[in-house]
Amino acid sequence: MSAEHAAPLAERLSWIAVDWGSSNLRAWALNDEDQVIAETSSPRGMLGLTPDEFEDALRDVIGDWLPAEDNGIEVLICGMAGARQGWVEAAYLPLADDSDVLAELGTRLTPVPTKDPRLQVQIVPGLCQQPDTAPTPQGFDVMRGEETQLAGLVARRPGFDGAVCLPGTHAKWARLKGGRISGFTTFMSGELFKLLSRDSVLRHSLNSEDLAGSLDDEAQQAAYLEGIDTALSDPGRLSAELFGIRARDLLDSRLPSGTARGAWLGARLSGLVLGLELSGATAHLATGSQVVLIGAESLCQRYRLALEHLGFAVAIEANADMILSGLGHIHQRDESDSTS
Amino acid sequence: MSAEHAAPLAERLSWIAVDWGSSNLRAWALNDEDQVIAETSSPRGMLGLTPDEFEDALRDVIGDWLPAEDNGIEVLICGMAGARQGWVEAAYLPLADDSDVLAELGTRLTPVPTKDPRLQVQIVPGLCQQPDTAPTPQGFDVMRGEETQLAGLVARRPGFDGAVCLPGTHAKWARLKGGRISGFTTFMSGELFKLLSRDSVLRHSLNSEDLAGSLDDEAQQAAYLEGIDTALSDPGRLSAELFGIRARDLLDSRLPSGTARGAWLGARLSGLVLGLELSGATAHLATGSQVVLIGAESLCQRYRLALEHLGFAVAIEANADMILSGLGHIHQRDESDSTS
Repeated sequence: MSAEHAAPLAERLSWIAVDWGSSNLRAWALNDEDQVIAETSSPRGMLGLTPDEFEDALRDVIGDWLPAEDNGIEVLICGMAGARQGWVEAAYLPLADDSDVLAELGTRLTPVPTKDPRLQVQIVPGLCQQPDTAPTPQGFDVMRGEETQLAGLVARRPGFDGAVCLPGTHAKWARLKGGRISGFTTFMSGELFKLLSRDSVLRHSLNSEDLAGSLDDEAQQAAYLEGIDTALSDPGRLSAELFGIRARDLLDSRLPSGTARGAWLGARLSGLVLGLELSGATAHLATGSQVVLIGAESLCQRYRLALEHLGFAVAIEANADMILSGLGHIHQRDESDSTS
Repeated sequence: MSAEHAAPLAERLSWIAVDWGSSNLRAWALNDEDQVIAETSSPRGMLGLTPDEFEDALRDVIGDWLPAEDNGIEVLICGMAGARQGWVEAAYLPLADDSDVLAELGTRLTPVPTKDPRLQVQIVPGLCQQPDTAPTPQGFDVMRGEETQLAGLVARRPGFDGAVCLPGTHAKWARLKGGRISGFTTFMSGELFKLLSRDSVLRHSLNSEDLAGSLDDEAQQAAYLEGIDTALSDPGRLSAELFGIRARDLLDSRLPSGTARGAWLGARLSGLVLGLELSGATAHLATGSQVVLIGAESLCQRYRLALEHLGFAVAIEANADMILSGLGHIHQRDESDSTS
């Protein structure tokens, strides 16, 4: 990019939004109307960095956007960069009965000292839930990154009431009432599926099928939904049903052969693991109630298939939209807070 | 061992029993009264061998026992050496309504050709269960090695009625009626625990605690039994309770600190995973009924603690005793069959 093109961007740049996860980061340049004027990404996630490497990693990614001199472009970061093992720890904000933690995120930012004077970095806190203080009795739980997406959802849908699911390695299910979060639960489904499909005895029976992949045909969809129903009807038999995938591969002559066999068994495994999650997550949801999914398109479609099969009304919101809406909302709160 | 000592053993040797598993093998030399006159073991399990390496691996282990010349010492092998990827495949014997498969094992041996004329090798078949033909409706399932232990149990307790559990990487639960096996179910608990404790996000919260290890103190025992109860009371929440282990490590100030913390959380994880198994495996068992455990001592003790907590009557049999009893029984059947 030539200097002629870079200069105007630097002039229009108002602030920078960053979603810095465990395994990658995404950054957006925004003007003073919160419109995206550039975006970029990098595979340098939190897990690969020591604390003193974050600033350089960030500048490698957004350096081209920065003006030659400035006394502080706000860089607002959500995600695992704020974990204890990250750049600087942004302490978890505890859910409590008498506070609207999603609305408070912008007033609880953790400033991060930088060598480069052009950067004014702040990190959004995660949320934690403790049985003693949570609005409704819940288990111990934490989230980091998803709180920003939930704030983004509430910014788009003020006073939102209902269940929100953020699928992924550690899927989060949050309950919102009148735009406030009243509790949340994390399910290890994504990680469980990865471990079982890549590292367990089941790997011999599967293709390199991924939980996030699309279900190619009707046979796979049926295998997936059968897995969902099996897990929901008797979740206590789950670890037997898991081994049953291996046994069916060895014995079941009615299964397709070749790659279709591995795809069928992979779809069933995905259904079993996700069915276990849905057994816990939807136990107290009335049939017909709405579930908003926030996440990657193909993974959300897989959840949608199961949730609609179970009689829920599903809406999908894109990850990046909710992050930008959330960081934009937090940025405004932070601005109004610092100018008041 | 000097030749003076080896010679008498070779003279007393009648046959050789071998339990050849995925990751190791154990062998016993027996006289014509089925008494053990020598035993040995090796880490050369089935997974590390190609088919043409089995004979040499066996001779490395039992070679010292063999007479200089002989026209065939019977070597009776059970376990994974008979798998498709093993030495020679010993096809699964299907459970069926009208047959006593445990009694038939000795008449369904697979002979294995050897270069060494002193060896007369035979492999015990595994068992398989298919929903269409099983005595009671069961899922697809397979076992290989455990059938010999079950035959050993029935040889010791003729007409045995009740539940038998063989803990391990893939735990087997069998139902026996009048000494016949009527069905069985495999649970992936051991493998699930290993994957979760070594390879998942939970590894950060645990010590190198192993499912087979003993529960050192009362606090660990309590954590383990709490995990059992939690999984049994709501198995559908399992993958949430798994993540809860991580969250409690981050948040729960009432937990012990230091290595006791990891041990407590490891005991809880073990309880959750085993509780899920017990939820499925004991669903149709009347409280107070007997469960016989066959396996390694410390792992059986862990199962016993949970099963007695749930009100079952537990008896433990040692692995090697049941294998020797089973192979001895099969050896007699085979002898009487070939001399009739």
